[in-house]
Amino acid sequence: MAEVKLFGASLSPFSRRVEMALKVKGVEYEYIEENLAEKSSLLLEYNPVHKKVPVLVHNRKPIVESLVILEYIDETWKQNPIMPEDPYDRATARFWAKFIDDKCLPAFWQALWSKENEREKAKEEACHHLKTLENELNAKGTKFFGGGTIGLVDIAANFFGYWLAILQEAAEMDFVTKEEFPVFFDWIDEFSSCSAIKESLPAKDKMLAVFQSRFKASTWKY
Amino acid sequence: MAEVKLFGASLSPFSRRVEMALKVKGVEYEYIEENLAEKSSLLLEYNPVHKKVPVLVHNRKPIVESLVILEYIDETWKQNPIMPEDPYDRATARFWAKFIDDKCLPAFWQALWSKENEREKAKEEACHHLKTLENELNAKGTKFFGGGTIGLVDIAANFFGYWLAILQEAAEMDFVTKEEFPVFFDWIDEFSSCSAIKESLPAKDKMLAVFQSRFKASTWKY
Repeated sequence: MAEVKLFGASLSPFSRRVEMALKVKGVEYEYIEENLAEKSSLLLEYNPVHKKVPVLVHNRKPIVESLVILEYIDETWKQNPIMPEDPYDRATARFWAKFIDDKCLPAFWQALWSKENEREKAKEEACHHLKTLENELNAKGTKFFGGGTIGLVDIAANFFGYWLAILQEAAEMDFVTKEEFPVFFDWIDEFSSCSAIKESLPAKDKMLAVFQSRFKASTWKY
Repeated sequence: MAEVKLFGASLSPFSRRVEMALKVKGVEYEYIEENLAEKSSLLLEYNPVHKKVPVLVHNRKPIVESLVILEYIDETWKQNPIMPEDPYDRATARFWAKFIDDKCLPAFWQALWSKENEREKAKEEACHHLKTLENELNAKGTKFFGGGTIGLVDIAANFFGYWLAILQEAAEMDFVTKEEFPVFFDWIDEFSSCSAIKESLPAKDKMLAVFQSRFKASTWKY
């Protein structure tokens, strides 16, 4: 068995987080693509509580929950840290990563997938949270949330760095624009040009086709 | 200004988490009770994103989100660690603390505060999550989730160590019993007899009176 295995799904931004961190660290791993419609018995054994990807298996021991995995990776392989050293900066990074998971991602899910009559309100809320995140980056004045190099928050925000544009295109929506979020769009350019990031992302045309068909199959109008 | 200040609310188990950690560490602090119906301008300044307690202010810098604060406290004051040293054990502790926040607490909130016709299902789900947590403690075979001393998960679980019994009494419910959760009830005894914990908990009679009146004022039947 390989020392490091990752059970993931190619269209899961949470799985991509783990790949990004492993690539930033230069850790070799075996990737196992899970079929989410028919999960493997190994996945269920490794993550009996949530039965979800991603699961990182290191020396036969499973670690689950993407943000928990990211911190584990950073503590286990010290090179190219994705967490700051200072306790206050570490707390700040954890705060924003949690903000992305608790507020931003659910809001964007709603904005993209809710019924027509609920969509405008959901878009407004999603943009409000994204502006909060953009303001943080603007106040820091650095290229990345992690400073000069990508860190926990950048990796946690990968949905916004890549997926969002494709989902907007697939749904024929354009509520997040460069004009409204100039600092964030600069970040997207920087983020998506990092080699560890580029190598971890699914091909755009494949994603676009998948999501276009999902939006078309939706009973709600797009 | 004191070096360490805590903005909290006496009936918030999230605020109590921070007090417990500070007491375990022996860190002196000034406690400021917030009126949640009329939050202070300082609280809003320190936590503009969520506008919630608890907020820890250390050297004039605010830290928010209770689990983030606990890790900050552990990294800043090294004595009496509440996090394990080994990265895998650290990941495990973070996983269970997150499980408590994401699954257990919302489920118990539903079980206690939902309409009569939704209550049975909510109770079942809450007990299912609590059993998952109990199984983890049982498998560890230690006095506390933290091992021989209380750690992150014990502190995160303080709601179950103290509040739950009082809420059940106030609502005249008894769906979580010692017979069903023997390992968990042993943990409650150990947990609530630690001095750092006892000192951080609001008086039982005050809590009981507050919650009895809340349940009585509810439009749902208890």
